[in-house]
Amino acid sequence: MPPALPLITLLTDFGTKDHFVASMKGVILSINPQARIIDITHEIAPFRIAEAAACLRACYRTFPEGTVHVAVVDPGVGSSRRPILVTTSRYFFVAPDNGVLTPVLAEEQDVEIRHLENRQYQLESPGATFHGRDLFAPAAAWLTKGQPSSVFGGLIDDPVRLPVESPAWCERTVIGQVTGIDRFGNLLTDIKVRHLDDIRAVAQGGTLTIRIAGSRINGLVSSYSEGRPDHPSALINSNGSLEVFMKEGSAAVILGIGLGGRIEVEGPAS
Amino acid sequence: MPPALPLITLLTDFGTKDHFVASMKGVILSINPQARIIDITHEIAPFRIAEAAACLRACYRTFPEGTVHVAVVDPGVGSSRRPILVTTSRYFFVAPDNGVLTPVLAEEQDVEIRHLENRQYQLESPGATFHGRDLFAPAAAWLTKGQPSSVFGGLIDDPVRLPVESPAWCERTVIGQVTGIDRFGNLLTDIKVRHLDDIRAVAQGGTLTIRIAGSRINGLVSSYSEGRPDHPSALINSNGSLEVFMKEGSAAVILGIGLGGRIEVEGPAS
Amino acid sequence: MPPALPLITLLTDFGTKDHFVASMKGVILSINPQARIIDITHEIAPFRIAEAAACLRACYRTFPEGTVHVAVVDPGVGSSRRPILVTTSRYFFVAPDNGVLTPVLAEEQDVEIRHLENRQYQLESPGATFHGRDLFAPAAAWLTKGQPSSVFGGLIDDPVRLPVESPAWCERTVIGQVTGIDRFGNLLTDIKVRHLDDIRAVAQGGTLTIRIAGSRINGLVSSYSEGRPDHPSALINSNGSLEVFMKEGSAAVILGIGLGGRIEVEGPAS
Repeated sequence: MPPALPLITLLTDFGTKDHFVASMKGVILSINPQARIIDITHEIAPFRIAEAAACLRACYRTFPEGTVHVAVVDPGVGSSRRPILVTTSRYFFVAPDNGVLTPVLAEEQDVEIRHLENRQYQLESPGATFHGRDLFAPAAAWLTKGQPSSVFGGLIDDPVRLPVESPAWCERTVIGQVTGIDRFGNLLTDIKVRHLDDIRAVAQGGTLTIRIAGSRINGLVSSYSEGRPDHPSALINSNGSLEVFMKEGSAAVILGIGLGGRIEVEGPAS
Repeated sequence: MPPALPLITLLTDFGTKDHFVASMKGVILSINPQARIIDITHEIAPFRIAEAAACLRACYRTFPEGTVHVAVVDPGVGSSRRPILVTTSRYFFVAPDNGVLTPVLAEEQDVEIRHLENRQYQLESPGATFHGRDLFAPAAAWLTKGQPSSVFGGLIDDPVRLPVESPAWCERTVIGQVTGIDRFGNLLTDIKVRHLDDIRAVAQGGTLTIRIAGSRINGLVSSYSEGRPDHPSALINSNGSLEVFMKEGSAAVILGIGLGGRIEVEGPAS
Repeated sequence: MPPALPLITLLTDFGTKDHFVASMKGVILSINPQARIIDITHEIAPFRIAEAAACLRACYRTFPEGTVHVAVVDPGVGSSRRPILVTTSRYFFVAPDNGVLTPVLAEEQDVEIRHLENRQYQLESPGATFHGRDLFAPAAAWLTKGQPSSVFGGLIDDPVRLPVESPAWCERTVIGQVTGIDRFGNLLTDIKVRHLDDIRAVAQGGTLTIRIAGSRINGLVSSYSEGRPDHPSALINSNGSLEVFMKEGSAAVILGIGLGGRIEVEGPAS
């Protein structure tokens, strides 16, 4: 693991109207006044662990090595679910053990997982409702002060992982789903560049056909501005995923599709 | 009072879509480029002074000694209401004199209150509509540069205080109210651990009964995850207050209750 | 141009629920871990270039000289629209060439405009949908590391400018429009102090009459608190513009007026 930077990111479902996020920041700065704190988002829908996992996955790698990422979407706060610290070859992650770190566990190298159980690095509290402030924020702050991960608790090897659904194949068609809807109403999917490459290999060239919510899209464009204003279009987005959009409109609203919605990509008849 | 850290918190009802908050930050950084600024929230409902006071109270103590807290919910901006600086044994507070600092004045030690009247530490402006930028932000920034509080203006001893309603007692029942609703729809109340301790002393053990919005809750749980999915539950939250919640749902919506709603806690017949 | 501070502001229409803003910050901090990042807003309505231009204009001057301002409202991302770097005697601006910097180009001194075309200061990406992360954030970060503007690309002299509509005169009446609506529902207009001064010069004193959405307002007040609770009022705001408001209410909602709505100010008969 790298030396920790005094850089902490926060990802929660706490919203920004209450004192919750500020309380976490106050605790961090009381422990390490030099810490610098970046908000990833606090607008994860309440209790949506998978949404938090996807958001974290989309951006954690943009941060410098040694960053401490804190993810608190925690419907089980105060229950027996464990708080954990995951260290990898590049980053530190502090989170409840509820699957929010599933992509990290799958994609990072040299993963070490510890149970955050040392009360010396936790705050006393009259109630067990706010581990973000009382447990996760202090752990992150102490990491940035150079505490080694071993002081926080013992190793564990059975972290909770979310089930991962992969796109399915049916002859020359790959069948995926809508995994996210961004602010603009663009539809993110679990179909990646490599799936399209596989289709193309099967089909040896020719135009792809995309079917979603009763609409049919012929081929990909390479930027939003190439989309048609009256029909959905598709492209490979900046994270390497197939994305369906309406030019300067909301594909989610216009197609009436939501999370889990089905999308198919078919290669040409060869 | 402690030496000021170059750390400023901001709490306003300005929202985040306009330039207001950024303008305050620009002014602060122009005076002290080393200042570090933390947002508490900008989503206080417009003009709701009591909501801002409660939010500030819930989190200001998490910040390190020497922090400068700025609270601007200011329906009287530009009128004769005074801008004030409150220094205590631990913190600095900059705000309009409209009651937003009521909990600070009640709970902090060694309180000194000054009228921010020295124009040398204010910005000229074509209009008197934005004291956040023209008056409060500069005062906070100058404090972080080490200016002593005495330079900003003279002492005053008659700050505005919000009326404080305390829970009432009726035999072995304490009657309080809903004082806040958080993002998750959890109902915060003004009934504290000490009230419940008093009930228990009266009743010498036994289960508490909570009545709210026609629902009856028997006893407390200790975490959200212990709540029943189909019925409201209650616990002592991380700030030591009685809180009513629905497991992974909104108690405010399901019970149809809002700010000021009545809640009763009754001890067992002894 | 001044030496760049390690201070970057971000203004986008990305919202705060997705990973977009965090990804930009991660990229910036990976290039310059010392950079300090201030959010102006991310709540610009999607694709509303003029709204972003107005917001930037309202606050960029509050920041210290050497600040790098990044404005990304970019419906043409991935098309042939150019990414540009504008340096002035006081600031740096990084943005798509779509008019979002129109006020900067009109109001700043010693303006130099360059095409951001040097791929050495851009990130590789699987898709051309996120120049905020792949192109604008790196440029801003490299500027704060002291890279001279000349390394980013060649000079250009034909930036896109938004059409600017000025208030019109009809005898002793000036006719403007609503150019913004803030969080409180206050109506910002393009009528400035100087227009009112001109009216007064024409009319040699006397009371101004303001007409908007069927309402008539006699004269100006000097603060929100002087407004009538049952009728719109008007004042000169902190940016020197005529603003129409309802005391502790939303003038936009109550008057039913939106962006582009007509407002007239008439001087007295002389």
